[in-house]
This record gives sequence, structure tokens and C-alpha cells, in this order.
Amino acid sequence: MATIRDVAKHAGVSVATVSRVINETGYVHEDTRKKVETAIRELHYTPNEVARSLYKRKSRLIGLLLPDITNPFFPELARGVEDEMQANDFRIIFGNSDENMKKEKDYIQTFVQNNVVGVIASTNHPDNDTYRKLNIPVVFLDRTADNRPSVYSDGREGGRMAAQEIVARGSKKVTVIRGPKHIRPAQDRYQGAVDVLKSERIAFNVIPTSSYSFTEAGNWARELFEKHPDTDGVIASNDIVATAVLHEALRLGKNVPEDVQIVGFDDIPLSTLLTPALTTIRQPAYDMGKAAASLLIQLIENENVDNKTIQMPVTFTERDTTRKVEQYG
Amino acid sequence: MATIRDVAKHAGVSVATVSRVINETGYVHEDTRKKVETAIRELHYTPNEVARSLYKRKSRLIGLLLPDITNPFFPELARGVEDEMQANDFRIIFGNSDENMKKEKDYIQTFVQNNVVGVIASTNHPDNDTYRKLNIPVVFLDRTADNRPSVYSDGREGGRMAAQEIVARGSKKVTVIRGPKHIRPAQDRYQGAVDVLKSERIAFNVIPTSSYSFTEAGNWARELFEKHPDTDGVIASNDIVATAVLHEALRLGKNVPEDVQIVGFDDIPLSTLLTPALTTIRQPAYDMGKAAASLLIQLIENENVDNKTIQMPVTFTERDTTRKVEQYG
Repeated sequence: MATIRDVAKHAGVSVATVSRVINETGYVHEDTRKKVETAIRELHYTPNEVARSLYKRKSRLIGLLLPDITNPFFPELARGVEDEMQANDFRIIFGNSDENMKKEKDYIQTFVQNNVVGVIASTNHPDNDTYRKLNIPVVFLDRTADNRPSVYSDGREGGRMAAQEIVARGSKKVTVIRGPKHIRPAQDRYQGAVDVLKSERIAFNVIPTSSYSFTEAGNWARELFEKHPDTDGVIASNDIVATAVLHEALRLGKNVPEDVQIVGFDDIPLSTLLTPALTTIRQPAYDMGKAAASLLIQLIENENVDNKTIQMPVTFTERDTTRKVEQYG
Repeated sequence: MATIRDVAKHAGVSVATVSRVINETGYVHEDTRKKVETAIRELHYTPNEVARSLYKRKSRLIGLLLPDITNPFFPELARGVEDEMQANDFRIIFGNSDENMKKEKDYIQTFVQNNVVGVIASTNHPDNDTYRKLNIPVVFLDRTADNRPSVYSDGREGGRMAAQEIVARGSKKVTVIRGPKHIRPAQDRYQGAVDVLKSERIAFNVIPTSSYSFTEAGNWARELFEKHPDTDGVIASNDIVATAVLHEALRLGKNVPEDVQIVGFDDIPLSTLLTPALTTIRQPAYDMGKAAASLLIQLIENENVDNKTIQMPVTFTERDTTRKVEQYG
């Protein structure tokens, strides 16, 4: 069987030139191209995929698309991705999507124009053609879709956990803060919490919200205690919102956790430094980022990957905004 | 005078091919190259710089190097840079340096390999050859060097401000938490605070620190009140450290601001949601990022830039960890 070297010899050009013709990369003079094409036909040469990828010019760039780096959950994810990529000599083109599909498409397109060899994306639309039609590996991070490569934590289980623990510690009138409707993990958490509250027959109210913004979080916290002043347990949509609820509860002179318990979600670094320190459902953000990077590298390098959907554990992280279970267990 | 078009016609090739030969970009067949070179000699063609830059393949990538995206000050900066770059159709390759010169060099090198057209860097070593020898524009962000392009806020003035305000509100035994020695802005703030305390003849102690890590911040806060239990005013190295000091003061049963006042630095988004909300010296991080991006774009596009060193204002942001000035003014 003819090899690329045979083609090069036959055409009187270098192997690199043959590779350029096959992969349509770089400029090749028209006469040269014809010579190579003739040689390929005459020798019945079929470039195999391994040779293609060996000779195809590959960058060491990957694209990373996150919703918003100013939400303290995402820097941890990004840092995990970057440390793993850096250790493997890959570099990252980074963009914030603001959960906006137009911005996402725009970024994915320019990632491709810049020759990225893979993409890590936190998107609410993994089924969009933008991703379906990419012919480079994609890993979904903090999100999941069918059996496509992804690294995420179990939001539904996290929501269940938050409700179980707050109920086990004595809350009877719970308010659930429902995260933005268009963000999938937010809805998973919400659903998990509601499932448990219903099956435990605990009265609960819902405060719908539309973002994780620091300033808006304060408004929702005020709304919560105005509408439901007798709330004795709050399951927040994430730690930013939980921090705002804690701030508002203390401002109103409530004792936390005696009068009202609060459970957050994420375990952002500042949670331990709040007073009282925030009880939360922890997602291992840094490790999730590392795992996504590691999975993407395996896919880029065509390694055999057994497990392409990696679910990371959520853990109830007990601090001081919930009561001790001995008192109520 | 001969133009690039004349050369192309004379050599019997396209303008793009002549451009490739001149700029040594992309592949050109050896025979073609010789034809073009002959035409250039025969027509006495001199490519001018404008034509060079017009024909030279330019990417729309810039490199962004920050110390650590998990420090909540930097996501705001990064977001400012990205929003401005995105609006101008540039993309960002991003890296964390950990204030480590080897990592910095490594990143700058790969930025160049990936054809970035400019760099924004927060570095403690702007005078290093790595930056001096770059032949693309560089803007220093949150740092400054001589008269080279930079966007920063006045750390020294910020430090002075923190000391003046805490003294004006009655603190007599101040502890200054000195930020990491190798980080320039940290030393500027420290020096500014010490200048004022000395000239006002206020007794003060110093707690040296070596990072802005969340976990270590807790240790320094404990050390502070163990070593200097009668401290009645703390000037913290940044808001993370101030948050840890607040947490520790409350844990020890101190009233804030009655027993001890605390002033942070940066104004990270969570500062408003602490209880009591944190008084701090604000740096306009998002706007600094935007200004750096805008300056870099001007430099890339060879626009006439009048002001290449942009100092942004710091502002005393009064919240609830300091007393009201009426009581003491």
C-alpha cells in the first residue's frame, strides 16, 4: 500500500507539501497541487485518519465558554480547567456567554476561526446545531446532554439534600428561592428541593428569581421576608443569594440559625468567612474544571475514553446557618 | 514608484502571493518565491509599512495575564477587558500567572506563538526582558512601569485614605495588615497607610502576610487578635483579608465598628452583603479592565494615543464596619 512518502517521492515534492494538499492547509502552488493529485491517483493512495491528524497542523488552543466569570462559582471552575490545560501545554481562549445563545454562537465561531482543537462550554443549549455540527471535541461543563461528553454535579440530588437537611433540623415553613428559569442546573436544584418538601408534607413558598446578580440578590432577600415573614428555613438558589438572605435576616434582627436556617449552593470560597459561616451544598468546582479539561484532552488525543459523562458528588457542608441535628434529629 | 500590484503582474502571480513572500507568512513554492523576488529587484519595489501591516496576516487575538482569577478582584477586571474586546471583535487567550515569573514567561511565549496582536498583563516585573523585547503592544493592568502604557489605581493614595478615615473615626491602636511583599500594589497601599499613621502619631502594629488566600486569611486574622488584642482599628490588605478579620472579630464577641473598625481594599462584589457591610477603599475594577482593553486596541490600531498611563481614582466607600464621622469628627 502506498504511503505519503511514496506520494511525495513520486510527485517530486516534500511530505509536508503532500500533507498540505491532502489537508487543504497552507498555500500550495497550483502546478504542485496538480502533481501531488496525479501522484495520489496513480499510486491509489488513501490517507488514513491517523496520518491526517499527524500531518494536519494542530494548534494547542482550546475554547472555554462560561456564563459569567464574575459569579464566584466560575473562577474556581476556570482555574481547574486552566491548571490542567497548562500542565498539558494547552492554552485557553476564554469568553463569557451571559447565558445568551447569540453570544455563544459568536464565540464558538471565532474559536473555530482561531483553530481551537476542542471546546469546553457551560451552555443551556447543548443540543443546538452550534455544538452538534462542530467537528472538534466538546465537553459540557456544569451542564449535561444525553450521553455526550460532560462533567457536572447532581443538582437534583443537591436540592433534595438541602431540603432533607433543613427539615431534619426543624424548619417547618420553608421558602425555596428558585434560580433563573433558563439555567438548567438551577431548575434541577429547585425540583429536587420541592420533591422532598412535598413528600415530607412541609409547607413551602417559592420566590422566583431571574439572575445570580449581587445587587438583585438583595432585592429578592427583602421580598422574601416581606412576603413570608414567618419563614423559618430558606433554601437559596446559590451562595450569593444565600449571603444576601443572611444579610437581610440579620438586618431584620432575626437570629440565624435559631429563628431561620439558611442553606446555600456551590460553596464559594467566601462562604466560610461569613458570620455565621454559611451551610451549603458543595459542588467541587475546581475538580470539575480539572476533570473537564482532562476529558477534553483525552478526546483531542483520540484516546479510548470509557466514561464520557462524569458526575461529581455534591456534599452537604454543615456550618453555622443551620442548627445542629442532635437538637432536632 | 512600483506597487505590490505591479510586482504581482510582473511575476505572474497574485497580490496575496507577493504579500506572502514579503511577510514570510504561509507557504510559497520555491519557484514562485524566486519569481517574486526577481520582480521586486527588477522593479525596485520597496514594501512600505502600511502595506506590510495591511497584508500581513493579523489575528484578532490578545493575551490576558492575571495573577489569579479566584481572587474576587480579578474576575471584575477580566470581565471589563472581555466586554470591551468582545465589542471590538477581539478574542482573549487567558492565563493565571500566580505572580510567578516562570509561568509569566511561559505564557507570554505561547501568546506570541499563537499570533496575539497585543498583551494585557498584571505583572510585578514589567521591566523584565520578556516584556521589553515584545514587538507587540503591551498594557500593564493594575500595575505601572515608567511611562509605558498602563491602567492602575493609586494604591498609595488608597492606603493614605484608609488610614485618614479610620483615624478620623477614632481608632487609636491600629493594626495594618501588610500584603505580600512581592506584589507592588500591596506595598503601595501599606506605605500610604504607614505614612499617615506616622505623621498623625498614631500607635500601630503590622501583621505581615504572604498571600491573599482565603484559608490563610483566617490564620492571619486569628494571629492579629492574639498578638494585638487591644487593636481598635484594622487596615486590611484587601477585602478577602478584611472579611476574615471581621469574621474573627465577631467570633471573639467584639462589636464592629464600636470596639474595632475595619477598612478593606478593592470593593469586591460581596462586600456589600457582609454583616456589617464592609467599609473599603474602592478600585473601579471593571472600568480599569475596560480602559486597559480600549488603550490596547488603540495601540494595536496605531492610533495616536495621547495618554498612555491611565490612573483611575480610588474612593473611600463608607459602609458599616467604620463609625459615622459625626461622632468623632
